[in-house]
Amino acid sequence: MSAPPLPTLANATAPWGLPLGVRDMLPAAAAARREISAALLALFAKAGFAYVATPMFEYANVLARGLGNDAETALRFVEPGTGEFLAVRPDFTPQLARLVAQRYRDYRGDLRLCYEGSVYRIAPGHGPREIAQAGVEWFGSNAGDADARVLRLACEVLGRAHRASTRRGATEATLEIGHVAPAQWLLAQGDAATRSALLAALRARNHRAVARASAPLGPQARRLAAALVSPTFEVVPTRNGVRRQLDAALALPWPRHVRAALAPWAAMVNALETKAKGMTLLIDFAEVRGFDYYTGLRFAGYARGLGDAVLRGGRYDTLVARYGRSVPAVGFGVDIEAMDQRRG
Amino acid sequence: MSAPPLPTLANATAPWGLPLGVRDMLPAAAAARREISAALLALFAKAGFAYVATPMFEYANVLARGLGNDAETALRFVEPGTGEFLAVRPDFTPQLARLVAQRYRDYRGDLRLCYEGSVYRIAPGHGPREIAQAGVEWFGSNAGDADARVLRLACEVLGRAHRASTRRGATEATLEIGHVAPAQWLLAQGDAATRSALLAALRARNHRAVARASAPLGPQARRLAAALVSPTFEVVPTRNGVRRQLDAALALPWPRHVRAALAPWAAMVNALETKAKGMTLLIDFAEVRGFDYYTGLRFAGYARGLGDAVLRGGRYDTLVARYGRSVPAVGFGVDIEAMDQRRG
Repeated sequence: MSAPPLPTLANATAPWGLPLGVRDMLPAAAAARREISAALLALFAKAGFAYVATPMFEYANVLARGLGNDAETALRFVEPGTGEFLAVRPDFTPQLARLVAQRYRDYRGDLRLCYEGSVYRIAPGHGPREIAQAGVEWFGSNAGDADARVLRLACEVLGRAHRASTRRGATEATLEIGHVAPAQWLLAQGDAATRSALLAALRARNHRAVARASAPLGPQARRLAAALVSPTFEVVPTRNGVRRQLDAALALPWPRHVRAALAPWAAMVNALETKAKGMTLLIDFAEVRGFDYYTGLRFAGYARGLGDAVLRGGRYDTLVARYGRSVPAVGFGVDIEAMDQRRG
Repeated sequence: MSAPPLPTLANATAPWGLPLGVRDMLPAAAAARREISAALLALFAKAGFAYVATPMFEYANVLARGLGNDAETALRFVEPGTGEFLAVRPDFTPQLARLVAQRYRDYRGDLRLCYEGSVYRIAPGHGPREIAQAGVEWFGSNAGDADARVLRLACEVLGRAHRASTRRGATEATLEIGHVAPAQWLLAQGDAATRSALLAALRARNHRAVARASAPLGPQARRLAAALVSPTFEVVPTRNGVRRQLDAALALPWPRHVRAALAPWAAMVNALETKAKGMTLLIDFAEVRGFDYYTGLRFAGYARGLGDAVLRGGRYDTLVARYGRSVPAVGFGVDIEAMDQRRG
């Protein structure tokens, strides 16, 4: 049997419409999607990450433990027969944390795991949206080395997204790299109201709002708060720009423990620059989404022409402990849709 | 980075248990599962079937239209924001029928499509169970040839399952092949009560119950009802056994239109025997599950040591019309779990 030529398509029409947030993938789109997934899993396997599969849903309270505030984005339903609440996964990482705490309970070495599949998230006022993801998680890792290796792998993935998104090889991929220590210290300086206002101002990257929100703090904290959203960390006028940003970041009057956290991190970012050929590295300390989740390094990768971040990740040393075992971890997730240039 | 050796596992324990019916797949199991899926999709692609992807859930009433009586096996939930009922797919075939009616509305040629993924079915009194499937559907097909080609592809899949399930190559794979015409005619001979009793008796393959249920029918129908569950169609003592079964089946006093339906079907089954090396072909007219769904050929494949049918399929010429376009179709679905010998 030979493959038939595929016909052009009629438009999708009611009355057999699909809910917002999900869709059919016809042959070209479906094949492109499978190719991207397979390429990512091959890359992850080469880097020593073993593929695991977790269920589409599990008990809502078990999933919520790892999700924290994000639990409200999960689609919930009642389990027929028991009346228990189940939840569809909005994220793989809590499932992998549970799996490691539970199934590798007595294992003390490193575990490099990867995953691929769909997650579903409810946006306020909307139905669930399907998001195709693939990612890696390195559990039980020796912090410095695992961070650097995971970051290099993220660079490699971003490089592929970047090459897929451009015909010319223009340097339009950006990897934003941060660490939670600076913002974490700042947020601990004020009371609850100050903390909340500062979080919102940082999230908006609004210089004036940051100045207002940090007004109740001492002069050192005010200066450092302003530095997090300063133009120093927004523009990279030349190559080697990340070194200037690192120098500027380390020259700020951070308290001793923040400086101690940033020193090895800065060395790692510096070393990454030679690896990150053809892409822009940018320091970012003002990213506060998922702030309760990350505990050290964090990063996000963007490619020109792709709306969403192609990948996001970082170190999360307290997540697995929510499932009863203390295991440090670092990883990242890739948005397969953002990688997929062929989609309509 | 080189792949780390994978540790042995702790048992899964509460309190982070999973709902019944779903599970984590650790590296060996997950890799085996991916391999099986990839091999099936490669086989399907070689036979000219293009991979498509459909969403995990859609509007419950749209899915129910194609599912018919099976709609009750679908997990339903309320769409946040709209209050509409959504349902998780318990089967791919109705989704592909909808897709063909909707997205290929103006296309008049053949469409060979394939799929792979999980479906979820609620068993009475239990929660939803995840079932991994892959399958092919041939839409708009010229009946005879498509039936034969799909059946040969099913043989090839079953042969692989069979080789995977045995070390020796003993002939322990069985393909049961039937046609709906005989039972359909019989069921149309009685009133509703007779029809219902006969269906139950055939489903149980209980000779005495079939005799009792067909008592209100005429002598020809009684004899034919008994024939459907006769030992002729249960034992294959020798090779070429299917030819004897076919001869016996065709020698029965069927009404003219049943005989007309069986003649080309019998020729096709006969021709298949040379293709079905190392496996047993068996005629089965008494299979009445999914009876409202199939309209001609139907078949199921089994391999020794695998509990469930490895694959099931047949012709369903009225399903796509439920979505507003009349398109004949034939296909089958493979239970990936049943193919997977490495599972615990």
